[in-house]
Amino acid sequence: MSKFVVVLLVGFAFAKAIQAQTLKSPNGAFEMQFTLDSNGTPQYQLQLNGEPVIKKSSLGFELKNDEKSLKNDFSVVATDRSSFDETWQPVWGEESQIRNHYNEMAVTLKQAGTDRIMVIRFRLFDDGLGFRYEFPQQEFTYFVIKEELTQFAMTGDHTAYWIAGDYDTQEYDYTTSRLSQIGALHNSAISDNASQTPFSPTGVQTALMMKTDDGLYINIHEAALVDYSAMHLNLDEETMVFTSKLTPDVNGDMAYMQAPTTTPWRTIIASKNATDILASRMTYNLNEPLALEDTSWIKPTKYIGVWWEMITGKSSWSYTNDLPAIQLGKTDYSTLEPNDTHGATTAHVKDYIDFAAQHGFDAVLVEGWNQGWEDWFGHSKDYVFDFVTPYPDFDVKGIYEYAKSKDVKMIMHHETSGSTRNYERHLDTAFQFMKKYGYDAVKTGYVGNILPRGEHHYGQWTVNHYQHVLEKAAEYEIMINAHEAVRPTGIARTYPNLIGNESARGTEFQAFGGSKPNHTTILPFTRLIGGPMDYTPGIFEMDISKVNPDNDSHGNFTLANQLGLYVVMYSPLQMAADLPENYNRFLDAFQFIKEVPVDWEVSKYLEAEPGGYITIARKDKNSSSWFVGNSNGTTARTATVDFKFLEKGKKYKATIYADAKDAHYKNNPQAYKITTKNVTHKTKLDVFTAPGGGFGISVVEVE
Amino acid sequence: MSKFVVVLLVGFAFAKAIQAQTLKSPNGAFEMQFTLDSNGTPQYQLQLNGEPVIKKSSLGFELKNDEKSLKNDFSVVATDRSSFDETWQPVWGEESQIRNHYNEMAVTLKQAGTDRIMVIRFRLFDDGLGFRYEFPQQEFTYFVIKEELTQFAMTGDHTAYWIAGDYDTQEYDYTTSRLSQIGALHNSAISDNASQTPFSPTGVQTALMMKTDDGLYINIHEAALVDYSAMHLNLDEETMVFTSKLTPDVNGDMAYMQAPTTTPWRTIIASKNATDILASRMTYNLNEPLALEDTSWIKPTKYIGVWWEMITGKSSWSYTNDLPAIQLGKTDYSTLEPNDTHGATTAHVKDYIDFAAQHGFDAVLVEGWNQGWEDWFGHSKDYVFDFVTPYPDFDVKGIYEYAKSKDVKMIMHHETSGSTRNYERHLDTAFQFMKKYGYDAVKTGYVGNILPRGEHHYGQWTVNHYQHVLEKAAEYEIMINAHEAVRPTGIARTYPNLIGNESARGTEFQAFGGSKPNHTTILPFTRLIGGPMDYTPGIFEMDISKVNPDNDSHGNFTLANQLGLYVVMYSPLQMAADLPENYNRFLDAFQFIKEVPVDWEVSKYLEAEPGGYITIARKDKNSSSWFVGNSNGTTARTATVDFKFLEKGKKYKATIYADAKDAHYKNNPQAYKITTKNVTHKTKLDVFTAPGGGFGISVVEVE
Repeated sequence: MSKFVVVLLVGFAFAKAIQAQTLKSPNGAFEMQFTLDSNGTPQYQLQLNGEPVIKKSSLGFELKNDEKSLKNDFSVVATDRSSFDETWQPVWGEESQIRNHYNEMAVTLKQAGTDRIMVIRFRLFDDGLGFRYEFPQQEFTYFVIKEELTQFAMTGDHTAYWIAGDYDTQEYDYTTSRLSQIGALHNSAISDNASQTPFSPTGVQTALMMKTDDGLYINIHEAALVDYSAMHLNLDEETMVFTSKLTPDVNGDMAYMQAPTTTPWRTIIASKNATDILASRMTYNLNEPLALEDTSWIKPTKYIGVWWEMITGKSSWSYTNDLPAIQLGKTDYSTLEPNDTHGATTAHVKDYIDFAAQHGFDAVLVEGWNQGWEDWFGHSKDYVFDFVTPYPDFDVKGIYEYAKSKDVKMIMHHETSGSTRNYERHLDTAFQFMKKYGYDAVKTGYVGNILPRGEHHYGQWTVNHYQHVLEKAAEYEIMINAHEAVRPTGIARTYPNLIGNESARGTEFQAFGGSKPNHTTILPFTRLIGGPMDYTPGIFEMDISKVNPDNDSHGNFTLANQLGLYVVMYSPLQMAADLPENYNRFLDAFQFIKEVPVDWEVSKYLEAEPGGYITIARKDKNSSSWFVGNSNGTTARTATVDFKFLEKGKKYKATIYADAKDAHYKNNPQAYKITTKNVTHKTKLDVFTAPGGGFGISVVEVE
Repeated sequence: MSKFVVVLLVGFAFAKAIQAQTLKSPNGAFEMQFTLDSNGTPQYQLQLNGEPVIKKSSLGFELKNDEKSLKNDFSVVATDRSSFDETWQPVWGEESQIRNHYNEMAVTLKQAGTDRIMVIRFRLFDDGLGFRYEFPQQEFTYFVIKEELTQFAMTGDHTAYWIAGDYDTQEYDYTTSRLSQIGALHNSAISDNASQTPFSPTGVQTALMMKTDDGLYINIHEAALVDYSAMHLNLDEETMVFTSKLTPDVNGDMAYMQAPTTTPWRTIIASKNATDILASRMTYNLNEPLALEDTSWIKPTKYIGVWWEMITGKSSWSYTNDLPAIQLGKTDYSTLEPNDTHGATTAHVKDYIDFAAQHGFDAVLVEGWNQGWEDWFGHSKDYVFDFVTPYPDFDVKGIYEYAKSKDVKMIMHHETSGSTRNYERHLDTAFQFMKKYGYDAVKTGYVGNILPRGEHHYGQWTVNHYQHVLEKAAEYEIMINAHEAVRPTGIARTYPNLIGNESARGTEFQAFGGSKPNHTTILPFTRLIGGPMDYTPGIFEMDISKVNPDNDSHGNFTLANQLGLYVVMYSPLQMAADLPENYNRFLDAFQFIKEVPVDWEVSKYLEAEPGGYITIARKDKNSSSWFVGNSNGTTARTATVDFKFLEKGKKYKATIYADAKDAHYKNNPQAYKITTKNVTHKTKLDVFTAPGGGFGISVVEVE
């Protein structure tokens, strides 16, 4: 018998068979009970102020190859309790101080017949519950999870703000419905995507936002998704019980495990106040502390880019139409005729650099700069890009020097087309190339199906890939903004060079037919729970045909709404996505985008209702200024901003960028008015918001 | 319409509908006819001196997704003929000059209804036929091969020397049978392997060796396997027609293609003389010329290693038995108890270095030097090795300096456990580590199932991986000896840093129960057609229990046979695989291993019969000495060596290391006798060879 087993057995000798345990949150409002049922199946339930949030729900796993499941026949051999309270400083964020305060209970379970040890660790915060499974070192070392059986038993037929569960995309428009209607509405909730794999007619994604008939807001997600597959939820419409549905690998297996190891945390945030969901830091707190020694190179960034013109179809990523396909290193572009629509030309990029410099933006993103875009998509092409070879009309060195002379950073773009092996093969040279030419950040992309074939965007294999890229980027002091990657789960606490993700419907869909007008009143409750989104707001021209006559899409928002998003949709990376010529038409409104910070000292969540409206006030990390933002849903509404968050005794000048009375996302989206007002901490201000509207307010201290 | 299509159409305008074409080899002995049948299906047939070698056989492909197959409705739009004759110098090889001489016919086919263009290029040499499919630039760009339908129609129920077709291993013992018996014998031809996927009861591997009742020897293989999946053969026992069976990917697809592209060459070598099969250079000639500018760093190498003691179970790769599994970077080996069986200790390795220096070996291989061997195998473990972190008892720097002081090179070992992504992630650091510590060559290994899961050792994905490693190694001036990788197809012409492969049953199986005594009389006709094998001969102690009392295996060969293999089994990388203590018991015989070169100026294939015997004479590249080697099959036999290859007028001293009269692989394998004899080009010498026996002769010029 080997050494470590002996140690464990000694531990067991002192273990007691405790069958029920209660854990309370620091403020006592939440209470969690852990039990084993008569089959020895672990179960938990959660109450808030005595009212049930999660009914009794089972925990466990099915294993591959008919191995006895990790589901029942458990007994409790130890229960360890502790408390934790610390305040940490994020590198960037909605606030400069984050308190991590919880009571913890770790239940060590032993399975009869197998002697396997499984620990379930619960952390109960004042904002909700996190728990995970842990497998300490033991003879039971390697196992393959066929299904994770974590349940979240709902107390009723709640209202849910959901997108369809899918192993490859989250780029769906949100549906608001009763849980009991998910199955009926599922088909209509699925739109086309370059890579998509819905798995069940009652499957939904996390973070899942819900509201009970009693006005309780509940959010289910996960934290610290590392070397495991992403969790979705599958609803039993009869019982209103959600069961976890992991993302399978090519064999249909969910995760390969080796003890000692843990799963990610499963999180339940709940409150009677919707704003508390937005204010929760539980997801970050459940992640590991900062893994980097030096973070001075990680800088919140406001940027413009040669991008919206491609999304709208005005210009192209590709350089030539001469060939149906190219072969990197073999195709000689110098012999091919340019297509006259290529966006990333040196001259055009310099115009963007000029605009960025003129208006004080930190950086310029350029897509379509590198060879390979002629046939980058949909061909399961392995060697699709090399990430270092520019098109003949893109002068890397000249642009580098020009940008440098204007004190503007360039943002790199690495579309992988889902070809993860190819990207990993080129990572070092691509990052070295970036460092050579002054690029500090890269937008990565994973459009289309993943290579290796059969793997999904959200499976363990690919999750491992994103993490590899993130950690490798950190070695090079490079910031990552990953599009089409798995949705974030607070990883940015540990690796704050993950300054952005897409992983939801971004503004681009406004050029693909449009999203619902209340889209941005839901995202902060769902997608943003795990980390910031590179949403790319700031579209001033909603009639896309004015950008590209062949595109009849319409942006379903008002101009004032777009301004509000810079506050509502927190991100350390914010784009002003529209074309410079559109900003030049509305320079007075553009002023708000120029002024709004991308890093904050304090955030106040003034009012919020998922699908309805969100109003947030944030204080600049580097000045005494505050900024207030609102995104409004489909119905016109008047928001009341209570400025009590301002410092007493100080005077401020508020500049209010709001919808005009006749504004409407559909037929009058550019109707805004800009007014100013002196405000103090006593001021209450009514601001009208149009359907699909919103507002932005800058609040600057005056002498 | 884009530019390139116009160009092709102009070409078509001059095309003629030619329905039958004949091609002859330079010496006129071979004739190949190309035809289209009434369905427009391309067909070929091959004759040698008027006798059929391959009967009329169809060519083509099935495509994925019900795309119209590339099988019929073709017409000939062009036929291009040319001849080629050049002599090139391999970096290493069986001879210093290789003539590449063939007549070529490229038939351009156009498919009715699709306008797809497919070229079939035939090259007819004096030793056989090579042909491949080519897809020039056209609108038909991306396609997925569901099946390659290349046929090889046999003229009768030949005798075949075969191993079972398998997508993951070639480590099977050979079966000699009629073609008609393959199906009946298939089950018994399959033994256990760490990764194996037989695909059909009549499936066999290439290179496939056959002999007709008329005494014609036929060999079918492939050349230049790059970015495509390896070809096997599946027999229709009714018709005696082999059809190509490619290795599928995880979806069951065979190859992803993007025009312009080509398949590998399909090769048929044929002769009435078995020795001509061994002498054929067609496989190399069909590969691309040298891709490297400088090859001065590629050096044929004779080595010993800390390896056989692990294979026999005398010592272990792993360092500790304390844990059932380890986690690289987390497991602290310094806290674990060594298991006392670990082979790769500094002191032990230095003993090997001493032995290598004492006996003039170039290098020492050490396996099990790096962390991770405790649970390296069978767990589908992703991060299994990092290739740079030694065990606590292996002093990388000290060993480097010690070996350098003794003028001995160290050979690196990179077992990947099939985890190809992990290996690629670490390739740069692993190769940099090698260069830092003076390692010029690496033995790579792919034991177990491939990661990514569902891919096979011989599929396009993994073939692409091996090639990536080979090319990356070339950048670092590192030589590769890849075990469990796809069998070679002459790639070493282009990348001669591929100095070895395993990809067949090597000597290790003699410690796992034994291979048939005539194994090494077949391998040169099969596995070695595509390139050298790191067979690791030189075992002097056949009773494995004398090495490890717990291992009752027996090596099925005589000691003299082992000497002969250094000549018979050509490789620029030759191991003396046994333990130093076993060599010390037979230092007179060991002398042959010490003297035999690993690079040659000329080779003479004196006599050969697959499964029976092989006798080869080779002239040292760096002296006037010759070496003769023989491997004998199961029946005792007297070989007659005709020394007519020696230079006229010169005198030589032959030292003959032969089986004693009473030698037998089974019960008297160490019975050898060493005699000397003066020889000239007129000498004929009878040498007795025991069952499982053989001999080695050194022939040194005397004044």
